[in-house]
Amino acid sequence: MGGILSDLRVVEGSAFVAAPLAGMTLAQRVAEVIRFDPIGGGLDRHRWPVTKDGKSLYWASLNKGKRSIQVDIRQPEGRELIQALVAAPGPGNGLFLTNFPAEGWLAYEEMKRRRADLVMVAIRGQPDGAAAVDYTVNAAAGFPMATGHEDTDGPINHVLPAWDIATGLSAAFGLLAAERHRRITGKGQLVRLSLMDSALAMLGHLGILAEVQVNGVDRPRVGNDLYGAFGRDFACSDGQRVMIVALTDRQWRAVVEATGTAERIAAVEKTLGLDFRKEGHRFEARDSLNPMIGAWISARSYEEVARVFGEKGVLFERYQSFGELVAGDPRCSLANPLFGEVDQPGIGKVLTPGSLLDFGAAPRTQPVRAPELGEHTDQVLAEALGLSSAQIGGLRDRGIVA
Amino acid sequence: MGGILSDLRVVEGSAFVAAPLAGMTLAQRVAEVIRFDPIGGGLDRHRWPVTKDGKSLYWASLNKGKRSIQVDIRQPEGRELIQALVAAPGPGNGLFLTNFPAEGWLAYEEMKRRRADLVMVAIRGQPDGAAAVDYTVNAAAGFPMATGHEDTDGPINHVLPAWDIATGLSAAFGLLAAERHRRITGKGQLVRLSLMDSALAMLGHLGILAEVQVNGVDRPRVGNDLYGAFGRDFACSDGQRVMIVALTDRQWRAVVEATGTAERIAAVEKTLGLDFRKEGHRFEARDSLNPMIGAWISARSYEEVARVFGEKGVLFERYQSFGELVAGDPRCSLANPLFGEVDQPGIGKVLTPGSLLDFGAAPRTQPVRAPELGEHTDQVLAEALGLSSAQIGGLRDRGIVA
Repeated sequence: MGGILSDLRVVEGSAFVAAPLAGMTLAQRVAEVIRFDPIGGGLDRHRWPVTKDGKSLYWASLNKGKRSIQVDIRQPEGRELIQALVAAPGPGNGLFLTNFPAEGWLAYEEMKRRRADLVMVAIRGQPDGAAAVDYTVNAAAGFPMATGHEDTDGPINHVLPAWDIATGLSAAFGLLAAERHRRITGKGQLVRLSLMDSALAMLGHLGILAEVQVNGVDRPRVGNDLYGAFGRDFACSDGQRVMIVALTDRQWRAVVEATGTAERIAAVEKTLGLDFRKEGHRFEARDSLNPMIGAWISARSYEEVARVFGEKGVLFERYQSFGELVAGDPRCSLANPLFGEVDQPGIGKVLTPGSLLDFGAAPRTQPVRAPELGEHTDQVLAEALGLSSAQIGGLRDRGIVA
Repeated sequence: MGGILSDLRVVEGSAFVAAPLAGMTLAQRVAEVIRFDPIGGGLDRHRWPVTKDGKSLYWASLNKGKRSIQVDIRQPEGRELIQALVAAPGPGNGLFLTNFPAEGWLAYEEMKRRRADLVMVAIRGQPDGAAAVDYTVNAAAGFPMATGHEDTDGPINHVLPAWDIATGLSAAFGLLAAERHRRITGKGQLVRLSLMDSALAMLGHLGILAEVQVNGVDRPRVGNDLYGAFGRDFACSDGQRVMIVALTDRQWRAVVEATGTAERIAAVEKTLGLDFRKEGHRFEARDSLNPMIGAWISARSYEEVARVFGEKGVLFERYQSFGELVAGDPRCSLANPLFGEVDQPGIGKVLTPGSLLDFGAAPRTQPVRAPELGEHTDQVLAEALGLSSAQIGGLRDRGIVA
């Protein structure tokens, strides 16, 4: 296939977002990723969104380009097959990615008895292996209490499973780093990460933990204002809304120039004793600045606002719903090389993103549909494990695979 | 240092979150990452949160473990130094990560004239290279119109820069994949990605784009309810709030058993003609189910709720603010091996996360503080470029470096 990771074969035992996303991130660069599921499908088989017939758009979207096998891992013979698959010989094999509890027959110590240089990436919920999902992690991580308008009472949950995404992408990175280490040293390893640690790490990396410790500040809700600089949403005269951001001095000058507010803003600056070349001062004065900028915008249609902002180089974007994004944004269409059209059995033709990474040495290929459950059972057993048709037939007859 | 990527040296030209996070993800595995900035610092030098003295906790948190050099890239001699550094010989060199506009002297075609097998990862805002930041991308991506309570009017911005995170982690993955390709083929390449494409890709991978296209559904706000299954926040009698999730049938049975609502829920199931073993049916009946579960919780203190939920295996988590997380959650303390304590000059001792990936073959080391701006200018020029003290002194005298 000529892909950038085409010599690798990853076995994935997974459900929900983080581990499937990690596997798909690899699969999109044309590594072979084999996802195994219980016969009839895993816990995420029916996860919403679903079609009117109950087919999961979520599952199809998170498992694009993988091979699917169905194995009854409650039976010893089924577990034996998975262990053999994970431990299959060859330099590109022996890569196992899972969010199943890494214990019993799935423990690293157990799995590596079959292949000493196994690379296993184990995603957990909590650092100690206890259960957690994105939505529970997010409750602990503080963001729901810092999201929304100042007068909100109680938490506001996120809709994007951001911790699943951070964990899944980190798992893909970890697998490549460990595989690289194996190529250099010949040694495999277990790589562990958790949803909760992903959230805690990002809280630290963004300076939020330090802010609590050093400043003693429990960051309050600031509505849609961008913390520490100028930025927020404004409504145009036709009801369209725009997000404006001025992190840099140049971006700020563009906002001031576009809205013709230079004199009044200079007066505010003087009155308050602030220096709006400093991004923090723009934030501190937001209750004075927002109405001035807002008045200019609310007197104009989105079309006019966009024209002037474009001319002056204001950094802005129109708010749109998912539906508006799909219906009218050229970035979310085949005009963007990120996308292809995929005909997904039982679902139909859907605009489908490929890899978000554009590798110069391995040009983008069309995105590939998700498998049907068990679509590749026979093929994988034959090609990866060398089983004969008769052996595969026997496994099917005994209900070990499907 | 014995780290898992310790033979790599990455040059980073960056500001804000995505590219610095990518570099730090690499630096935390003991690759050497050299960040270059203009003399006096880049555009993110004063980004909030800041200490009372104006020192950026954000900058310190996103640049841990890197080396810092200050170079005046407006001068040809400064640009020459950066190009030489990027193109330095050796198999672990020639890795360049940037979110600066990859044009002019920073264009890949220009840079690779110095080293044909250069790997360059270029992060942009828009797919076409136009400017965008997390907060503008998020406005276009649809989430602000789907976040918050059903009766919310207008957008609710996220506080976590989720697209920066997705982009930064993907960039780190992309760099490793390209470096692997170079090790195998000898060939370098340009790898491109953008904040906007990261958002669009995740919208596709989560099935949200397909939902619009196939079902014609523009997903509405559903408050804090978990879309398509049972899950939401509930208040205890003492005002503490918990997030409960029942994605799986087992998790749902635990909720029902813990709250003693089996009979009443069975009655609802019958009345509505639903089957609560199906996660989607639990979502459709949320207006009936939530009050029953909520009544049990609101009659009990958090302590009692947590005890019963723990016994019954309910998947839940208490909501906490950033301050409460730092003050009282053992996961956010030195008891979690993710963390170490770092003494950051000008800031003080802060609880600091290391790598969220725990590599068995390269045990976690203590997190490392961020550099002071230009702390390693002399060292890098001497070690990586072989410049003499006299040459470095000359560069300093001419204001090329600091």
